Amino acid sequence: MSRPFTQPTVVADRLDAGLRALAGLVEPGRPGWTRTALGEVDRDARELVRRWMADAGMETRVDGAGNVVGRLRGTGSGRTIMLGSHTDTVVGGGRFDGTVGVVGALEVVRALRESGRRLEHDLVVVDFFDEEPNEFGLSCVGSRAMVGELTREHLEMHDEEGRTLADALARVGVDPGAALTARADLSDVDVFVELHIEQGPYLEQQGASIGLVESITGISRFRALFSGRADHAGTTPMDVRRDAGCAAAGTVLAVERIAGEGALTKGTSGAVTFTPAAVNVVTATAEFRGEFRGPEAEWLRHAQDRLTAAAQEEGERRQVGVDVEWLPLQEPAPMAPGVLGTLTGVVDALGLSASRLFSGAEHDAAVLARSVPTGMLFVPSRDGRSHCPEEWTDLDDIAAGVTALLHSVLALDEGGVR
Amino acid sequence: MSRPFTQPTVVADRLDAGLRALAGLVEPGRPGWTRTALGEVDRDARELVRRWMADAGMETRVDGAGNVVGRLRGTGSGRTIMLGSHTDTVVGGGRFDGTVGVVGALEVVRALRESGRRLEHDLVVVDFFDEEPNEFGLSCVGSRAMVGELTREHLEMHDEEGRTLADALARVGVDPGAALTARADLSDVDVFVELHIEQGPYLEQQGASIGLVESITGISRFRALFSGRADHAGTTPMDVRRDAGCAAAGTVLAVERIAGEGALTKGTSGAVTFTPAAVNVVTATAEFRGEFRGPEAEWLRHAQDRLTAAAQEEGERRQVGVDVEWLPLQEPAPMAPGVLGTLTGVVDALGLSASRLFSGAEHDAAVLARSVPTGMLFVPSRDGRSHCPEEWTDLDDIAAGVTALLHSVLALDEGGVR
Repeated sequence: MSRPFTQPTVVADRLDAGLRALAGLVEPGRPGWTRTALGEVDRDARELVRRWMADAGMETRVDGAGNVVGRLRGTGSGRTIMLGSHTDTVVGGGRFDGTVGVVGALEVVRALRESGRRLEHDLVVVDFFDEEPNEFGLSCVGSRAMVGELTREHLEMHDEEGRTLADALARVGVDPGAALTARADLSDVDVFVELHIEQGPYLEQQGASIGLVESITGISRFRALFSGRADHAGTTPMDVRRDAGCAAAGTVLAVERIAGEGALTKGTSGAVTFTPAAVNVVTATAEFRGEFRGPEAEWLRHAQDRLTAAAQEEGERRQVGVDVEWLPLQEPAPMAPGVLGTLTGVVDALGLSASRLFSGAEHDAAVLARSVPTGMLFVPSRDGRSHCPEEWTDLDDIAAGVTALLHSVLALDEGGVR
Repeated sequence: MSRPFTQPTVVADRLDAGLRALAGLVEPGRPGWTRTALGEVDRDARELVRRWMADAGMETRVDGAGNVVGRLRGTGSGRTIMLGSHTDTVVGGGRFDGTVGVVGALEVVRALRESGRRLEHDLVVVDFFDEEPNEFGLSCVGSRAMVGELTREHLEMHDEEGRTLADALARVGVDPGAALTARADLSDVDVFVELHIEQGPYLEQQGASIGLVESITGISRFRALFSGRADHAGTTPMDVRRDAGCAAAGTVLAVERIAGEGALTKGTSGAVTFTPAAVNVVTATAEFRGEFRGPEAEWLRHAQDRLTAAAQEEGERRQVGVDVEWLPLQEPAPMAPGVLGTLTGVVDALGLSASRLFSGAEHDAAVLARSVPTGMLFVPSRDGRSHCPEEWTDLDDIAAGVTALLHSVLALDEGGVR
């Protein structure tokens, strides 16, 4: 059989140039490669991605939730394969988290166009708005909006100064009303695949260049408030103190202890405040936020119960009032077995060393998975570092990951989802 | 024998009026009865005290360190009895801490003048500048300067914005150079006596109206810095994390545990910071300040060793670097046995119920005690509360304390220090 096209090929230099261009767009005076979704610079980055999409022959639009959407028309069915990730970063983040999946999906489009190969499916690439947790405590804003899960309550979430997420969205040109109604009709989408850096040490430890994600973590976040009493630090005997700070410290350790007992489970505390901020007054109130992550919803619910009980015990011992407020549980998201099977076959056929693994990080793919058959590919992170300036993935590994993504698209276009 | 004077008598209404006048001088928009030494309002309060001194017939001056000093000339020897306390408060403090001793000493002067009774000694009353720990971490600024213990290093102490104590002093009209050389010639001072609220629950528990202070606490303060690593909270396994926040939390609990094992000993942690202030990143660095207090220098040194070892153990377990920096130890200050004997005899003769006790709070009297035979009287604090808006002492108890102070002055003038 004659082939009317050359074999599409990933060009590593183009990946490198794209990642460097995004790394040049950072917020002045902030640590690392900071480009937060609610800042002006990520808005510039998303506009750059939109221009890249247009230059690659895609129809582009920005939806009501700030997602940049490019569509490469296919030859036929009107069915769609969707790829995507995000360009925003955490404060002090690195150069690869999210950007690898956006630049990689664009490279798939460029490689296809260059080769003359046309898919039967439409190929949609999305740069999802605000994947990282913003200062209002919400993550995956764009993907939530796309699947219809962004709510009015989300828009009313507020930061410490009382500003709402709705206000912050408006400031970067995302109309809150439009975001609420940005739900896309995804009935034409056969599959969503996200390429991302692992952000952990597993692939490096296994000597694997590709990670085949089996499921994405569930997350259970809480806010813990401890109400004690401000007393003179020199005159108040230890046994009558109501030290909210000590109760909080004990609960921070309980988060670490509970998470350490599970397999693949994690627990983290942060945003700690002791009031008053003085050493000569017993701490009157203390507050912190914490989270558990793990692959099993049952374990997360059990961890919630244990942590609440531990906090209450820490409080009771010191006559300190305790209020642990749990946010709605984000359920673990298993990837679609058919998509995982296709990705596995493609990676095997390419001769790439691969490992199946669990994602402890949250991703837009976890949100999409609730509406669309979804798969996810990882590339290794040096020393497992991420969300920090040291974040690094070798260009060879990125190119291998994009090659796997490209051939997955070809396989999914030809064979559909197994 | 004829007496050329009536018996001097304390007037409770005057004490009440003085305390109310000072309670009216508070910093706008701050909690409780805030009147910090480095704010403008305490400057007004000290000027009010100076005018009260002048109205009571005293020669007044403000020394180079901002201490307001009034002198009531005696009939003879040129020897001096000194009384005093302070008008500044902690942020969110109450109406009695310090002010009772200043208003009380003034009432002693007024009662003496009103009765026609003249002392052989000069009677000096001091409103000491900045007794409470300021935002630069220094307390007892005025009394330190008076005994010659204020140093250039003290003036270079800086707050979180990098401003120095010297700058802050200049802003409230205290010339830093003059403060450094404000050491007073105290060779004429036979005795210093401070009246103060207890700030703890002991007198109330004992049903006593007067506390006879045996010694004032030693204080050992530290700053603890924990250096871990910022990592992704979802992907970094618990056993490879370098969580500085958990190491800090464990050390906060060690402060509580070590202090709880001693008698009369206290340990407090505050000013806690976790960086970054996020729940989805492992805490990279954590910092807090802490202190131990107790009547025995040996115990304080032992507590230092144990806390440093505990912090290092918390760090080592998590591969977190630990730096515990101890400030110079403030030694416990025993009161002069002769002065304590005189005060005890006076209180007994007045028929007041009294208890001997240890002061867990620091006082200007602890600083003066290093240069002058010193004694201290306490009046009860309701529920032991202090350094908070709920701080309260009944006017009857204050009047009893001032009566004890007045008769102590008479006894010391007649008999000298036993």
